[in-house]
Amino acid sequence: MKLLQDRPIGIFDSGVGGLTVARSIRRYLPAEDIIYFGDTARVPYGNKSRNTIIRFSREIMDFLMKDNVKAVVVACNTASSLSLSSLKLIYPVPVIGVIKPGLKEAISILQAKRIGVIGTNSTIESLAYEKEARRIDPAVRIFSKSCPLFVPLVENRFVNDEITELVAEKYLKNFKNKKLDALILGCTHYPILKTVIKRVLNNVQLIDSSYAVAREIEKVLREKKIASDTGKKNGSMKCFVSDDAEGFRKTAGIFLKQRIKVKKVNL
Amino acid sequence: MKLLQDRPIGIFDSGVGGLTVARSIRRYLPAEDIIYFGDTARVPYGNKSRNTIIRFSREIMDFLMKDNVKAVVVACNTASSLSLSSLKLIYPVPVIGVIKPGLKEAISILQAKRIGVIGTNSTIESLAYEKEARRIDPAVRIFSKSCPLFVPLVENRFVNDEITELVAEKYLKNFKNKKLDALILGCTHYPILKTVIKRVLNNVQLIDSSYAVAREIEKVLREKKIASDTGKKNGSMKCFVSDDAEGFRKTAGIFLKQRIKVKKVNL
Repeated sequence: MKLLQDRPIGIFDSGVGGLTVARSIRRYLPAEDIIYFGDTARVPYGNKSRNTIIRFSREIMDFLMKDNVKAVVVACNTASSLSLSSLKLIYPVPVIGVIKPGLKEAISILQAKRIGVIGTNSTIESLAYEKEARRIDPAVRIFSKSCPLFVPLVENRFVNDEITELVAEKYLKNFKNKKLDALILGCTHYPILKTVIKRVLNNVQLIDSSYAVAREIEKVLREKKIASDTGKKNGSMKCFVSDDAEGFRKTAGIFLKQRIKVKKVNL
Repeated sequence: MKLLQDRPIGIFDSGVGGLTVARSIRRYLPAEDIIYFGDTARVPYGNKSRNTIIRFSREIMDFLMKDNVKAVVVACNTASSLSLSSLKLIYPVPVIGVIKPGLKEAISILQAKRIGVIGTNSTIESLAYEKEARRIDPAVRIFSKSCPLFVPLVENRFVNDEITELVAEKYLKNFKNKKLDALILGCTHYPILKTVIKRVLNNVQLIDSSYAVAREIEKVLREKKIASDTGKKNGSMKCFVSDDAEGFRKTAGIFLKQRIKVKKVNL
């Protein structure tokens, strides 16, 4: 059995989007080994119910635990919103979601008081951002809006397209007079649309939680004294998916500019 | 054990879309009992691989077989394209897909020689329509185009919207100079966009396969002498889904203008 600090960090997402979080963690903590799981056979999670998301998340956690992960990052905003509290109760390793780090960056670092949040239907309906914000600072106001077409637009490569601009204009127009201090991109796919979103909301600071999540996992590993020995230069990264590896490799290119090893598994 | 003719017809789809097929079958064969299964926990199928679609389809078939169905309609174009031939080999009941009935309507009834087909990525990449057309009449030419944004546009209620028009214009523009005799709407969601599609391709006959499928199942039941006794006036309809029933009921309203009984099951 490996020493705790030599064990890998698990990261999971409904599909490819969590690779942006994996990339940030690799840059921030290059010595750590990473095991990534993308649930590509059941993607997307954004319109599915709490019970189903909890069931899927637990199946993935069980898979990662068999690989002796020392901590898990729930890179998917929908899964973080709906299943994080259940997972924290059940599993004996630290489980880190993406909601709190993104909010802490907005509230503590940027001193934002009026924060916009965009995400999938299930994320927004869960009120996860509102509840977490109240815990951090009850004076903060959250303005949220679900943007369910953004994920299929990104996955079908409608990134710099007039259609995407029209969709963004429609989804975001009510934010224009809200005097937002920051807008949290509450879905791993949305940073790909940064340019379009900035064009619609030109004075708002956009928050891509993936950097904040990397800092959070670093802090947790340091506090628990389970960070990898920094003498080891390059950690490894293994990807597992529930649908065929080839499809994942293709879409992964939108999120990660490098070739990756991918293996299909049945949960 | 019920007599064969008194047993229900099974219908399955990745989600709610197959309800259009269920509705056509109810109208055409009102005495038949129907068991509908929508795989809402794993929807959509349109970007997933052949192996995964076959695995999902077999799990659903096993569920329907336990309910002693006398025949099964694969109402989903993607599942029909990728798994129908496997299912026909494995299961002892007639299994009817949506590809052949739609094509037969275009070729035999409308005498179409130049046929457009639109569908999901997986349907179009499978070449299922091309292969089936060659079997029916090798002189027929198929022109196909995947329209992956149509499903999320329908499910997010962007039906009569300028955004949907722009997407349709982009997807269908190459069909304009093809002198098509007919265009098959090769996905259960697409009939909802009939008006928009007609505006882009104004002289092309659109084919919604759900009517052709209802006629096909009627023919199969009659030939095998397992049609329900027509003395019985109104068959029942039970719906099962893999995600929560409430979400299904909500989206079902786009496809079916009536309240339905829905139950969640774990496959």
